[in-house]
Amino acid sequence: MQQFIPQNPDYEAMIRSKMEQNHFMNFLGFKSNLITPGLVEGFLEIKPEYKQQIGFLHGGVTATLADLAAGFAAFTLVKKGQTIVTIEMKISYLNPGIGESARARGFVIKAGQKMIFAEAEIFTENNGEETLVAKGNATYAILEL
Amino acid sequence: MQQFIPQNPDYEAMIRSKMEQNHFMNFLGFKSNLITPGLVEGFLEIKPEYKQQIGFLHGGVTATLADLAAGFAAFTLVKKGQTIVTIEMKISYLNPGIGESARARGFVIKAGQKMIFAEAEIFTENNGEETLVAKGNATYAILEL
Amino acid sequence: MQQFIPQNPDYEAMIRSKMEQNHFMNFLGFKSNLITPGLVEGFLEIKPEYKQQIGFLHGGVTATLADLAAGFAAFTLVKKGQTIVTIEMKISYLNPGIGESARARGFVIKAGQKMIFAEAEIFTENNGEETLVAKGNATYAILEL
Amino acid sequence: MQQFIPQNPDYEAMIRSKMEQNHFMNFLGFKSNLITPGLVEGFLEIKPEYKQQIGFLHGGVTATLADLAAGFAAFTLVKKGQTIVTIEMKISYLNPGIGESARARGFVIKAGQKMIFAEAEIFTENNGEETLVAKGNATYAILEL
Repeated sequence: MQQFIPQNPDYEAMIRSKMEQNHFMNFLGFKSNLITPGLVEGFLEIKPEYKQQIGFLHGGVTATLADLAAGFAAFTLVKKGQTIVTIEMKISYLNPGIGESARARGFVIKAGQKMIFAEAEIFTENNGEETLVAKGNATYAILEL
Repeated sequence: MQQFIPQNPDYEAMIRSKMEQNHFMNFLGFKSNLITPGLVEGFLEIKPEYKQQIGFLHGGVTATLADLAAGFAAFTLVKKGQTIVTIEMKISYLNPGIGESARARGFVIKAGQKMIFAEAEIFTENNGEETLVAKGNATYAILEL
Repeated sequence: MQQFIPQNPDYEAMIRSKMEQNHFMNFLGFKSNLITPGLVEGFLEIKPEYKQQIGFLHGGVTATLADLAAGFAAFTLVKKGQTIVTIEMKISYLNPGIGESARARGFVIKAGQKMIFAEAEIFTENNGEETLVAKGNATYAILEL
Repeated sequence: MQQFIPQNPDYEAMIRSKMEQNHFMNFLGFKSNLITPGLVEGFLEIKPEYKQQIGFLHGGVTATLADLAAGFAAFTLVKKGQTIVTIEMKISYLNPGIGESARARGFVIKAGQKMIFAEAEIFTENNGEETLVAKGNATYAILEL
């Protein structure tokens, strides 16, 4: 893992505040337990309504977790007075999402002055065993507020 | 638009049945009004809980709509006894998602024997005017049940 | 096709000049016959050395054509004193690249103040018949020189 | 790095033979010095004709290196009598490609029965210092010959 230096000393409080205001994140119940410079993790309890017709975690939920984790990882590295928007994201579905909970791990691979590139790995936990179900990669643009 | 010939004469009934069983789709409230060979459309009422911290439609909801529309468009073209899984999807966020409702339009660009490539356009409607907020493109693998 | 208004009245001369200086484009022999606001087309004679081991057009050449066509389409829409860089590109390989020549068609789908989104379609011509072999989509950042 | 078990004991000889027949790879002069199960590396001397108008390595060359490295990494894991085709690839351009040579490192992240997911990192070397200039990720379908 690359080491990143935060530009905003209050990055964690800022991220926590953004998370509190993120309606869809809270609607799903995604919670973050790790916010460090360039690396954010979080968990989601997989409720029955988050599944598709075969009983696997819906790819849209997986994509949401990837954007949340990668996006907040990118957000830890901006200056005070800056925000980010997602430009694009690609997600590859490696394994079916089976289990009771999901873990999302977002990490920055390049932090530029105008653009941040980040990736996310989504795991599901089933009977105590974790499986990597998806990998995402996204581009974020930095905006001045 | 390319013309596609469905391999399953009951494709619409099959898709309707899949939609009824798709928990996350129904949880969000996405409804389809158009199911034709290689082209599926649907609508979503944008509830406050589908937004992110700035008040725009959350990118995860947008990605979900793209996967639903493109995936069901692909699904119209498989044979009886076949199903599809999403291999990967990329989504580009072109404009902020502002409005009361969203429309998703999914369409196939290549239907092969093992793989189907499809795209999706997501629009939001605000005061009667539609804006293209995102464009997605995805690969689906055809599986024998 | 969306209509775009060029910000630089001399866009065609600017693009022609960039094309003359693009070493790899000229090394391959890609030539453009159509440069309009937001839409650029070009052709490539498929030499034996552009193929992979099975005799199809190499995916790297196809990706190069996609980036050239989409990139120059984006370039038609910037102001004097601005340039663009490719942020990312995705390319889907729809059909094997068989034939004597390739045609690349790049077109903008959203031109913003800081970012331009463009797509490209790559066709090969074999015995007078064209096949869509690949579709790409890319993000370009606008930079001030 | 994940450990992968090759299904074809002669995987290295098979890859070497494919490389000899890959016209575009040899035309550019890409050479591989490392072929292991799920991980392939190679080098390219950056000739002036591989650059774009500003003097950086052309994104099409970078994309070619990514597809070669990731594709051959995927190829190490198929059975005798199988081949692979690139379904799609995304490449993110992290830094300008400046230098005398490029190194491509391709590695598999998931090897399934029908599909292999692989990534690639492209570095350029300038005055003895390496920079990560691009990261790609691709999907390969396994075909029976």
